[in-house]
Amino acid sequence: MSKPASIGVFRTPIPLRWSDMDAFNHVNNSRYLTFLEQARIEWFETIGEPWVTEDSAPVVASATLNFKRPIEYPAEVFVELFTEKLGNSSVVIGHRIVDADGGLHCDGSVVAVWIDRHSSKPTPLPAGVRRASELLLETPAA
Amino acid sequence: MSKPASIGVFRTPIPLRWSDMDAFNHVNNSRYLTFLEQARIEWFETIGEPWVTEDSAPVVASATLNFKRPIEYPAEVFVELFTEKLGNSSVVIGHRIVDADGGLHCDGSVVAVWIDRHSSKPTPLPAGVRRASELLLETPAA
Amino acid sequence: MSKPASIGVFRTPIPLRWSDMDAFNHVNNSRYLTFLEQARIEWFETIGEPWVTEDSAPVVASATLNFKRPIEYPAEVFVELFTEKLGNSSVVIGHRIVDADGGLHCDGSVVAVWIDRHSSKPTPLPAGVRRASELLLETPAA
Amino acid sequence: MSKPASIGVFRTPIPLRWSDMDAFNHVNNSRYLTFLEQARIEWFETIGEPWVTEDSAPVVASATLNFKRPIEYPAEVFVELFTEKLGNSSVVIGHRIVDADGGLHCDGSVVAVWIDRHSSKPTPLPAGVRRASELLLETPAA
Repeated sequence: MSKPASIGVFRTPIPLRWSDMDAFNHVNNSRYLTFLEQARIEWFETIGEPWVTEDSAPVVASATLNFKRPIEYPAEVFVELFTEKLGNSSVVIGHRIVDADGGLHCDGSVVAVWIDRHSSKPTPLPAGVRRASELLLETPAA
Repeated sequence: MSKPASIGVFRTPIPLRWSDMDAFNHVNNSRYLTFLEQARIEWFETIGEPWVTEDSAPVVASATLNFKRPIEYPAEVFVELFTEKLGNSSVVIGHRIVDADGGLHCDGSVVAVWIDRHSSKPTPLPAGVRRASELLLETPAA
Repeated sequence: MSKPASIGVFRTPIPLRWSDMDAFNHVNNSRYLTFLEQARIEWFETIGEPWVTEDSAPVVASATLNFKRPIEYPAEVFVELFTEKLGNSSVVIGHRIVDADGGLHCDGSVVAVWIDRHSSKPTPLPAGVRRASELLLETPAA
Repeated sequence: MSKPASIGVFRTPIPLRWSDMDAFNHVNNSRYLTFLEQARIEWFETIGEPWVTEDSAPVVASATLNFKRPIEYPAEVFVELFTEKLGNSSVVIGHRIVDADGGLHCDGSVVAVWIDRHSSKPTPLPAGVRRASELLLETPAA
């Protein structure tokens, strides 16, 4: 069952576009990565501190998506993000794409790594990103 | 090391577009799913038999992508597909996105399931898809 | 100066996505057509009658876009649509893409033609589309 | 009738992707701008001199597209570009999107302006862009 949107979850609506559909009349599966990217950026923007600088920037190291139920335009969908694992340079961000009733369209996780933009080597998470990730580690009361 | 393009691998070039890049000047990670989709469709088209009909069509049930090295336009990239596991209604399609020298940009797998378009239930793989998938199960000589 | 959003104008917000930007860090000009398409569809949805049926559907016959000022994510943008000319099978839909202060990013027009889906010939506008287009012909007071 | 691909025309194939189609099973009209962008960039790359620098870059000032006949995947399409008018800071680039038999899918023009990246004011065309544009002014023999 879908974890409630509460402490420990960043939740944002993703306004769909008709153009998100493909020739099969469903939202194309590549758009799910776009929706997750958009939610991550909106989450990072809530931090109030830079998450990308002259020196470091996040890259997506891996992504896992389990497509549970197609999305058909028009629909109201939300991305929910939470921290599955917090490392020195990386964070495993769990995700769920849900409808307004909590019905699950997709779940999975994305590993985001911060890299030094000059050396392309992993670099410690920005302080704000670390703090924000810690908040999303908190488990909501059962 | 990258498996050679040979028996057991379907390989297709993906001509990049400048618009595949995002504001970080790399090919956006959502495009990798588009490239895999394009390669699957080109592979299905080699079958010589319908892979989507009035009655059944494939859906992507899950996708795993390990992003190894960014792609910067312009570049010559190829998708290689092979069969990791063949089921009754589904096939696990392994993938590699490589450059002309075999350097690995991405690997992982996609689970494609054929569903009955009326009932939305899994339905046996079309005969042509099954045969094509069996060919990509063959292991190249070491 | 931008015509006020009032009688005679359909106005809708277009929530931007980070992915709308290209490698020049501006919203890519091809997305403007996507924004206009989205606004048209949202407008058509307000009609309360079918605008696409088994028998007829709109196609875009031509588009003119004058790009006045780039859009940089994040930004709040709106599409405004109005009727420039109403024909038997077609409507010339004027557009403006503006920011929250009415600052103009783009203007121009799109010619939408309804065609018979069987013959591919022009067919009279659906009654609801005609009525909706007539409403957007009304000129706001100067 | 379509001008032959010859002196005075830059012609490039645009490999279609299945994902270029929208829910109406045609290549979406916004993709035409992507195809034109791709052709411009490939043309600029033939110049052998920088067309974007630290100091200046092109922007699209306007675009006109006349959609003549839909494109359905799979198809072989080409963009043809030629110079309609050459100014100090801008060039009006005529375009045709055609199939392998010269059948016309779209024509129109795009105005590209080079701007100073610091002041955002128009700046003279790079020498290479000017020379390349002059070549595409040459009229093919009737």
